Amino acid sequence: MTTTVGRESAVEAARVLAPAFASRAVSYDRDASFPVEDFADLRAAGLLGLMVPTRLGGAGAGFADYADVAMELAAGNGATALIFNMHASVTGALALTSDEMARAVGAPESYFAMRDRVLAAASDGALYGVAMSERAAGSRLSQLETTYRPDGDGWRISGVKTFCSGAGHADAYLVAARAIDDQAKVSQFLVAAESPGIAVTQTWDPLGMRATASNDVSFDVVVPPDALVGGIEGLGVLLAQVMPQWLVASYSAVYVGVAQSALDAAVSYVDGRGLGRLPAVRARLGRADAGVAAARAVVREAARRVDAAPGHPETNRWVWRAKLLAGETAATVAASMLEACGTAAMRRGNPLERLYRDARCGSLQPATSDVCADWLGLAALGKDPENDAEVRRW
Amino acid sequence: MTTTVGRESAVEAARVLAPAFASRAVSYDRDASFPVEDFADLRAAGLLGLMVPTRLGGAGAGFADYADVAMELAAGNGATALIFNMHASVTGALALTSDEMARAVGAPESYFAMRDRVLAAASDGALYGVAMSERAAGSRLSQLETTYRPDGDGWRISGVKTFCSGAGHADAYLVAARAIDDQAKVSQFLVAAESPGIAVTQTWDPLGMRATASNDVSFDVVVPPDALVGGIEGLGVLLAQVMPQWLVASYSAVYVGVAQSALDAAVSYVDGRGLGRLPAVRARLGRADAGVAAARAVVREAARRVDAAPGHPETNRWVWRAKLLAGETAATVAASMLEACGTAAMRRGNPLERLYRDARCGSLQPATSDVCADWLGLAALGKDPENDAEVRRW
Amino acid sequence: MTTTVGRESAVEAARVLAPAFASRAVSYDRDASFPVEDFADLRAAGLLGLMVPTRLGGAGAGFADYADVAMELAAGNGATALIFNMHASVTGALALTSDEMARAVGAPESYFAMRDRVLAAASDGALYGVAMSERAAGSRLSQLETTYRPDGDGWRISGVKTFCSGAGHADAYLVAARAIDDQAKVSQFLVAAESPGIAVTQTWDPLGMRATASNDVSFDVVVPPDALVGGIEGLGVLLAQVMPQWLVASYSAVYVGVAQSALDAAVSYVDGRGLGRLPAVRARLGRADAGVAAARAVVREAARRVDAAPGHPETNRWVWRAKLLAGETAATVAASMLEACGTAAMRRGNPLERLYRDARCGSLQPATSDVCADWLGLAALGKDPENDAEVRRW
Amino acid sequence: MTTTVGRESAVEAARVLAPAFASRAVSYDRDASFPVEDFADLRAAGLLGLMVPTRLGGAGAGFADYADVAMELAAGNGATALIFNMHASVTGALALTSDEMARAVGAPESYFAMRDRVLAAASDGALYGVAMSERAAGSRLSQLETTYRPDGDGWRISGVKTFCSGAGHADAYLVAARAIDDQAKVSQFLVAAESPGIAVTQTWDPLGMRATASNDVSFDVVVPPDALVGGIEGLGVLLAQVMPQWLVASYSAVYVGVAQSALDAAVSYVDGRGLGRLPAVRARLGRADAGVAAARAVVREAARRVDAAPGHPETNRWVWRAKLLAGETAATVAASMLEACGTAAMRRGNPLERLYRDARCGSLQPATSDVCADWLGLAALGKDPENDAEVRRW
Repeated sequence: MTTTVGRESAVEAARVLAPAFASRAVSYDRDASFPVEDFADLRAAGLLGLMVPTRLGGAGAGFADYADVAMELAAGNGATALIFNMHASVTGALALTSDEMARAVGAPESYFAMRDRVLAAASDGALYGVAMSERAAGSRLSQLETTYRPDGDGWRISGVKTFCSGAGHADAYLVAARAIDDQAKVSQFLVAAESPGIAVTQTWDPLGMRATASNDVSFDVVVPPDALVGGIEGLGVLLAQVMPQWLVASYSAVYVGVAQSALDAAVSYVDGRGLGRLPAVRARLGRADAGVAAARAVVREAARRVDAAPGHPETNRWVWRAKLLAGETAATVAASMLEACGTAAMRRGNPLERLYRDARCGSLQPATSDVCADWLGLAALGKDPENDAEVRRW
Repeated sequence: MTTTVGRESAVEAARVLAPAFASRAVSYDRDASFPVEDFADLRAAGLLGLMVPTRLGGAGAGFADYADVAMELAAGNGATALIFNMHASVTGALALTSDEMARAVGAPESYFAMRDRVLAAASDGALYGVAMSERAAGSRLSQLETTYRPDGDGWRISGVKTFCSGAGHADAYLVAARAIDDQAKVSQFLVAAESPGIAVTQTWDPLGMRATASNDVSFDVVVPPDALVGGIEGLGVLLAQVMPQWLVASYSAVYVGVAQSALDAAVSYVDGRGLGRLPAVRARLGRADAGVAAARAVVREAARRVDAAPGHPETNRWVWRAKLLAGETAATVAASMLEACGTAAMRRGNPLERLYRDARCGSLQPATSDVCADWLGLAALGKDPENDAEVRRW
Repeated sequence: MTTTVGRESAVEAARVLAPAFASRAVSYDRDASFPVEDFADLRAAGLLGLMVPTRLGGAGAGFADYADVAMELAAGNGATALIFNMHASVTGALALTSDEMARAVGAPESYFAMRDRVLAAASDGALYGVAMSERAAGSRLSQLETTYRPDGDGWRISGVKTFCSGAGHADAYLVAARAIDDQAKVSQFLVAAESPGIAVTQTWDPLGMRATASNDVSFDVVVPPDALVGGIEGLGVLLAQVMPQWLVASYSAVYVGVAQSALDAAVSYVDGRGLGRLPAVRARLGRADAGVAAARAVVREAARRVDAAPGHPETNRWVWRAKLLAGETAATVAASMLEACGTAAMRRGNPLERLYRDARCGSLQPATSDVCADWLGLAALGKDPENDAEVRRW
Repeated sequence: MTTTVGRESAVEAARVLAPAFASRAVSYDRDASFPVEDFADLRAAGLLGLMVPTRLGGAGAGFADYADVAMELAAGNGATALIFNMHASVTGALALTSDEMARAVGAPESYFAMRDRVLAAASDGALYGVAMSERAAGSRLSQLETTYRPDGDGWRISGVKTFCSGAGHADAYLVAARAIDDQAKVSQFLVAAESPGIAVTQTWDPLGMRATASNDVSFDVVVPPDALVGGIEGLGVLLAQVMPQWLVASYSAVYVGVAQSALDAAVSYVDGRGLGRLPAVRARLGRADAGVAAARAVVREAARRVDAAPGHPETNRWVWRAKLLAGETAATVAASMLEACGTAAMRRGNPLERLYRDARCGSLQPATSDVCADWLGLAALGKDPENDAEVRRW
């Protein structure tokens, strides 16, 4: 069993790891390869059990704790933090759904044993990935082409997933699929990585966040009955709607960390070259500082509310605001910091070169900034943005 | 004696007053006249004693309480909130400076009696104004042309002040002046409005925030010895540096209120005309919603820190961030809301017409946005922005 | 007969008038009153005949000439230039429609005599206004509530128009109306101001462009047969589509003039106060300079193409680009120039105070910036933006 | 001798080549290698002789012709166009400096033979590079560490240059150096690539514009007397000041081409995926279309004026405006186009992935956008931006 970090010390543990992550970021970014050493560090520090209840050996963290940890990790390497975010989404969603709520949506008793087993494994160092998006459907659950059907007393899942962060390195994947005979029924399964019928294709070669190694994964697997998350079919869309923190905005914290990292890198560069005497450079640093502070304050307010009133309409508005602002701030700040530093900062090896590419990804990850703006506009008008939008979100 | 509101109920009291302020805003704006009725309401609600300690009959509020109250008042009428802000700056700076700190900078015992008298009067409904800026010097204290010199056992103050919010309606003015024989010595005096030698000139006819009635005031007055704030000369610049919350950013809260008000007005207008079906309009509302939320979160974080660690360098950074973001957000949001609503919203009488003009003022009030950006850039570089800037701030 | 300016000397004539317009702008703005003296000057300079063919006593100008003149006039007073623009739209549309095109759409011979009479009157100093918009319909021709029906051998027109620039001061109005028995048939009539049944209501009290005196006008008039523009019914929407320069973008040139004027005012203010030593101020001036130059270049390119290939799809794209950029540039530049100059520039009487309000109007006048962006997006995708939009434009 | 294109047909020749450039861009970008095939195409098409007078076998193009050609080439591959730009700068500066001007600054008769030889070689397919920037000095000529001194009847040049586009592939380099005994004397030499003492170091691995292969080059070479450009020493800074088109803004045209290419790629992607039904996507395309059109119009206006009135203060203002707007437009458009297309467009191989990186480089190449803004601000204030700036430009 690995050392488990405490809830109080998790942020400090993350802060300690960040410099090593930063020093390795260049090579993982170059190769678009999974940050093996970073995850060895996270495992050793007990951070894979961050969201796991203490009774199961974890740190028992809440969403706000997660957000603070993610901002620190991302200041080291945003890609590592994004993979960690997927793991935290799986463990966090399981850990923070109360027994009452699980029963209310119909979870059978068998669900609780499965849940505890999954969470206990995380505090022992298991890593979970998410296999939701598809090339054609994107993240719209209602359009998924991956299907499931009963097979023996379990299920057979068939389809190809994309943007699967940590593919090939996770111990299990949360796979979203549609019932083969009822397109409206979307369910989630936790599929062990060693199951026969899983294949990772090395398709990942993107602009930024390259070390997430978000390769394509094809599934043609049979899973046992309790692999069905929640124990009943059809919870997929509901979960997305009531827990937007995990699908919409858990990576907001990551992009705040990336933005902070870009500001820090620029300050260091400017300071080392004596460029701080230039007023235009100071103005760029000052405006970036204010922007990062604002994004951080919003992510923290959203996270605080997720803990205090999860699923509440006002909480969800903060979640979507956090997504919009974190993504736009990261891109804007990184672009401006390059202008503050000049052409030499564009050389590979300079952290800003990578951060500029990483930072662009936030607004593009679903929900995109344009979708967030529409959601928030509907909410401001007193509508129900989940159901009143012209285009289905999930 | 007026009813005194409690610290806990002050925000609610402000929220109750706001609609009446809003309904009167059109005519005060048109006439650029002091909002007499709004201040009668504030007095009756006991809000003039907001910052006064409970032992002197006030609400004993802290800076964060003030910020919440100011945001609510400003959602009714930003100009009223700006005048209130000046009053709160005077009473708040007196109330929140500890006896220890006052003694540490050399305040004589006589200071404490004067302070208590001034504060007790506020809880009885006295209104204080600030007479700091001058046409040539702006808000740079080191450039003031208003002078003071000993006169009998008191002081004689001579000069002309501008941007004096509430001129002609305050019961006393906080006047900044330089010693006639030592330009480096800037002191502040509390001058009773009924003193002979005070004249208000009706010069106020600006773009926005018209109801502040910030007319010019000329002083040629003799004041008693204890009118000298702090009881010793030369504290003027020091106060500005250690309490930037009152000089730099207390009106940040006001502009968040103005921005919120612009968003609310647009939502109401859009809803009434069925314009919410237009995606471009929804996107404008959604982005404005996120922007206002961010500015509010930053103002609150700054205010919280002012209470917890006043004068701390990190606190001061949040104060300057709040000033920058509140001013820019208000202007950006108001401009976009006009675009969301269209030409009809430009007619006088439509709240957005006034809010667009009011909102532009925030970034221009000192410290301007460009000055804030420079201050924050220096701070990000680890410099001391008060003393390392190329141009003196005060 | 007034002096008629030549095509070559028209721009110079406009440049000569601008300073006098600027000096009178404060009072016309304050009173929201028609700039009587400016139009006396325009009439005396022969500029009301700008678009009139030389054979009818005019200057025979093209659209590019108009744009250059309008930029100069607007640098004096944007509101005056907007009224002038309406007059130029009426005379320009009549003058620049070739006899061939008029016959092609079915104009009877009687149309040509009417056209020549109207144009000749303009070179004698007649001023034409446009009465198109309505409170409910805005500028969507298909939604107009003003109707017309046959009356004797002429027509009876009934309805209330809004945003009628120069109301009460024009010699005739171009009135858009729908056939009472066929909502799809929109026609335009030229209605003499002295006709019985026209009443101007003083409703005009807006944020900016106040001196356009764009009051409401109610019509219940009978007009002779040849008042029907084009001589046949139903040309209204067609004209809007094939000549977007007059409905969409003729005032683009006005807003470039306003933006230039804001930059010039700021340069003068900054220079007078020695603020040019501040790098942040210089940066604002520099970026404004580039922005105004770009908007001017686009307006000129659009105007050049209107003359060379009127109605061509590529020409129309430039027309819509000009509308989008001129409106956004004016608003952005004026807002930034206020920040460059500081609080003192917000006092009424300072040109920037007025220019900031005037400049905001451009993006809001139809087609709004959001509508332009959509139109241009459709065009970029190879669609027909007039007919493929989800919402009808006219 | 290669085929020489005519002045009129050069733009069409460039347009024909662009698609092949685009198809090869992925691999040259990946490898950060010189686009050998693109330059074989340019040579075969006679475009290396674009700026060479017809009497020497070239096309006799002017600056506006160059700008049009560069926009077309850059729409294929911006990096290829940047290398071409360096070649055009050398040949264009030589070709477009009149004999009178050359004699006026003191050029001896021997200069003219050298000039004609260099230009004739270009029309035969010789490629010229520029070796100006250095790691410490950047592009500030007055700070160069590369020196020259007399050596026999020629010169010895020693130093290390960076950002040398096309290093290792040019036939000769234009090298800027300072006199070893007079730091104020900056001269330029044309150094044959086969000269002993030139070494290229493979240091080039940047964010964008990777195929420029702008590696470091060290020089320790002896050159003949007529290698001194202009035939007299000390012309370096003067040339930069009087011909800013070649040092400041010749690559403005390149970035307009890059911006256009990003828009075209997005239109194609959006169209292929049916994303044009989303209003937010259309709005992004529409605003990008207007922005690119504006930047193109400004670059063309600047180019037109360079031909008509080279070196005139008003011409130079347009040149700096073009630099500012082209760089900012490219970066803004490419970033927005990625948001229009979504995550899939971030995959390497999608043109937008590369264009986003390439587009960021424009504002950072000297003169940076912040420097341009300052220059333009000074010019707007009626100052001489070359000599009144606080920091020396060259």
